[in-house]
Amino acid sequence: MIKSNRRRFLASAAGLAAVTVVNATPMRTKEKKSIAHQVYFWLKNPGSSEDRDELIKGVKTLRKIESVKKLTVGVVAATEKREVIDDTWSVSELVLFNDLAGEAAYQVDPIHLDFITNYSKLWSKVVVYDSSEV
Amino acid sequence: MIKSNRRRFLASAAGLAAVTVVNATPMRTKEKKSIAHQVYFWLKNPGSSEDRDELIKGVKTLRKIESVKKLTVGVVAATEKREVIDDTWSVSELVLFNDLAGEAAYQVDPIHLDFITNYSKLWSKVVVYDSSEV
Repeated sequence: MIKSNRRRFLASAAGLAAVTVVNATPMRTKEKKSIAHQVYFWLKNPGSSEDRDELIKGVKTLRKIESVKKLTVGVVAATEKREVIDDTWSVSELVLFNDLAGEAAYQVDPIHLDFITNYSKLWSKVVVYDSSEV
Repeated sequence: MIKSNRRRFLASAAGLAAVTVVNATPMRTKEKKSIAHQVYFWLKNPGSSEDRDELIKGVKTLRKIESVKKLTVGVVAATEKREVIDDTWSVSELVLFNDLAGEAAYQVDPIHLDFITNYSKLWSKVVVYDSSEV
């Protein structure tokens, strides 16, 4: 029984690695597709690096939400300026979920609600793009 | 000599895994931060699933570019509709690079230029957000 549980754990750990390691050979016949929740924040005080760092700190608290598979926080990258690039925002958030249920659970999670209560004073605008991996 | 090369390869593979496996313990003292190139495409014919699938196929060709660490393609996810969500686009592209040089190399790579030549007829608008992970 213990041996069987261990085998299941190993199988599950291998499956997890298969979807996250770059160019890994899939360990499952059907690879799990992610939901990507991509958020861009415009600060009320775009010139304040203090406000920016405070918001970054806030976004990082969302990593504790159970359904979050991966969460990265970004600032505008110093890539070459081109017409198609929007670089007017200040902080970006990229969250990966296993499925739509994970995203829905995130929205109502107390940690997310606390984040909105405590940090929404910092931003003037938010734009969200929710992608389903194909 | 062969043994030493193998050791270097293993060390490099472990470093790569450290930045991509969820919640992995960092294998390096300084973790490598990614550049995320996030692109949203609006189709000329938003109702055409044929055009959408053609563009998805095109975006996937960009995976062959050497500096691309990871590339995922998405369509609008069926998350709950909220005011902050922009769901007017049709195809999303998320590319991770190791650094700014990787993104710059991608822009001028022949595979990328071919993609623009062959597929730009399909879209009416593109918006790009380039994030530097913090």
